Amino acid sequence: MELLTTRQALDQWVEDAYRAGHRVGFVPTMGALHAGHISLFQTARQGCDRVIGSIFVNPTQFGPNEDFQRYPRTLEQDQSLLEQAGCHALFLPAVVDIYPEGHQTRVQVGALAEDLCGRCRPGHFQGVATVVAILFNLVRPRVAYFGLKDYQQFLVIRRMVDDLAMPLKVVGLPTVREADGLAMSSRNRYLDEHARAQAAALFRALKRAQELYAAGEEDPAALEATARAVLTTAGITRIDYVAARDPETLAPMVQCKKNPVILIAAWVGSARLIDNRQLIRN
Amino acid sequence: MELLTTRQALDQWVEDAYRAGHRVGFVPTMGALHAGHISLFQTARQGCDRVIGSIFVNPTQFGPNEDFQRYPRTLEQDQSLLEQAGCHALFLPAVVDIYPEGHQTRVQVGALAEDLCGRCRPGHFQGVATVVAILFNLVRPRVAYFGLKDYQQFLVIRRMVDDLAMPLKVVGLPTVREADGLAMSSRNRYLDEHARAQAAALFRALKRAQELYAAGEEDPAALEATARAVLTTAGITRIDYVAARDPETLAPMVQCKKNPVILIAAWVGSARLIDNRQLIRN
Repeated sequence: MELLTTRQALDQWVEDAYRAGHRVGFVPTMGALHAGHISLFQTARQGCDRVIGSIFVNPTQFGPNEDFQRYPRTLEQDQSLLEQAGCHALFLPAVVDIYPEGHQTRVQVGALAEDLCGRCRPGHFQGVATVVAILFNLVRPRVAYFGLKDYQQFLVIRRMVDDLAMPLKVVGLPTVREADGLAMSSRNRYLDEHARAQAAALFRALKRAQELYAAGEEDPAALEATARAVLTTAGITRIDYVAARDPETLAPMVQCKKNPVILIAAWVGSARLIDNRQLIRN
Repeated sequence: MELLTTRQALDQWVEDAYRAGHRVGFVPTMGALHAGHISLFQTARQGCDRVIGSIFVNPTQFGPNEDFQRYPRTLEQDQSLLEQAGCHALFLPAVVDIYPEGHQTRVQVGALAEDLCGRCRPGHFQGVATVVAILFNLVRPRVAYFGLKDYQQFLVIRRMVDDLAMPLKVVGLPTVREADGLAMSSRNRYLDEHARAQAAALFRALKRAQELYAAGEEDPAALEATARAVLTTAGITRIDYVAARDPETLAPMVQCKKNPVILIAAWVGSARLIDNRQLIRN
């Protein structure tokens, strides 16, 4: 795996790949890789001639009181996981490579980015959209892969790509889970033993909502209340949101005729965890 | 010259040009073409294998009380001028090609876009940056050409391209003028005989500021006052701004040690005209 630590080195790699006629797949990450990330790289390997990842803990998507400083950085382990996954190149930019002095352009997605995590984390999706636009322009992939665990992020990025007519395809892949259902997340490293046990309640809450929906419940408030009760019973009380929403627009629904996605953001110990599930009739 | 009226037709043209290894030059316009535009196409022809223009009167860069509806549309004449200029293809999108239903992404450049025309025309540069980003992603040119008459626009677009790492070069070309110095502009069509005579005062105002600067004046307020006096003497009283600014950042200067650019926006009859000139020591 080639390590590309400058824009010049990346440019050279990208030019070579294009000259060779390769189909390039890209997986942008913030590192602290887990099995969820690895599944993205494996799928990229299947669909592309060359796979490139990036690791960049993007300062502009963290709020002033968020976990930018303590966000887990596990570069050596990440590299070895990516080697094993058959990744061809890893782009490791410095902050100044992405945001040189005088940088002042932002990409803002509208309604999709305003509610849910957009409301809880002001500026978050603007930071995400901007850094992903920059990375897409640098790497110029044919396909980019994202985890559906970050469902709103996936919709925001896909919307940006469509709206700005960026010449690539955005693919979302299913959430990878621990044995007890907890969604894989770099932030799971923040969980102590007690919090780790509590955290499985997010998955159970989604599961209970699925059962209720399958049994015929179409009132989003009822679905949300059921999921919320599972969290509070498990002792999770700092809940940012539990929301049953339109799966394409994330707009609130009066009645869940169309299969809703139910989304949760909640604090477990010192970690803010998110998870979601699209509800289906069996 | 090929007329491309859909995104599909454009895609095909772009793919063919790339497959053939052509260097593509792009001139985005709002039509109502004049000699200033034609000079962009001529320069593009010299530097590129294939030249493509676009004509799109972009609704998002007009304010609610501005001239979107009456903006001059002269398509037949434009086509014949572009044929003569050796343009290879012309992209003529409909509004729905650029802003399909649900479109909600905007590109915002920061400080550069906030003052001067950004202050007088709220949302204008967001509309410009967004449409130009979309057009760049659709056309994927190696070089794009803009007139320096719209100096702030040129800086905003160049900044966007640098900040988002778009893989192209932005070239700014000198303002083309009428015999009496009036900068060529599609909006000159709004001028009646009296206003047309008045309008030459913008050029004279810039010229007076140049003479003063060449004579040693470095106080931006003095340079601005001199230029402004030429306008008011000519009967131009609705002046949006007269400003001597840093030529890279457009920031105000305490003293014009570095060659400033002096920028004017003023209403002449029913036309809002802009012009500018970088001041130099002889």
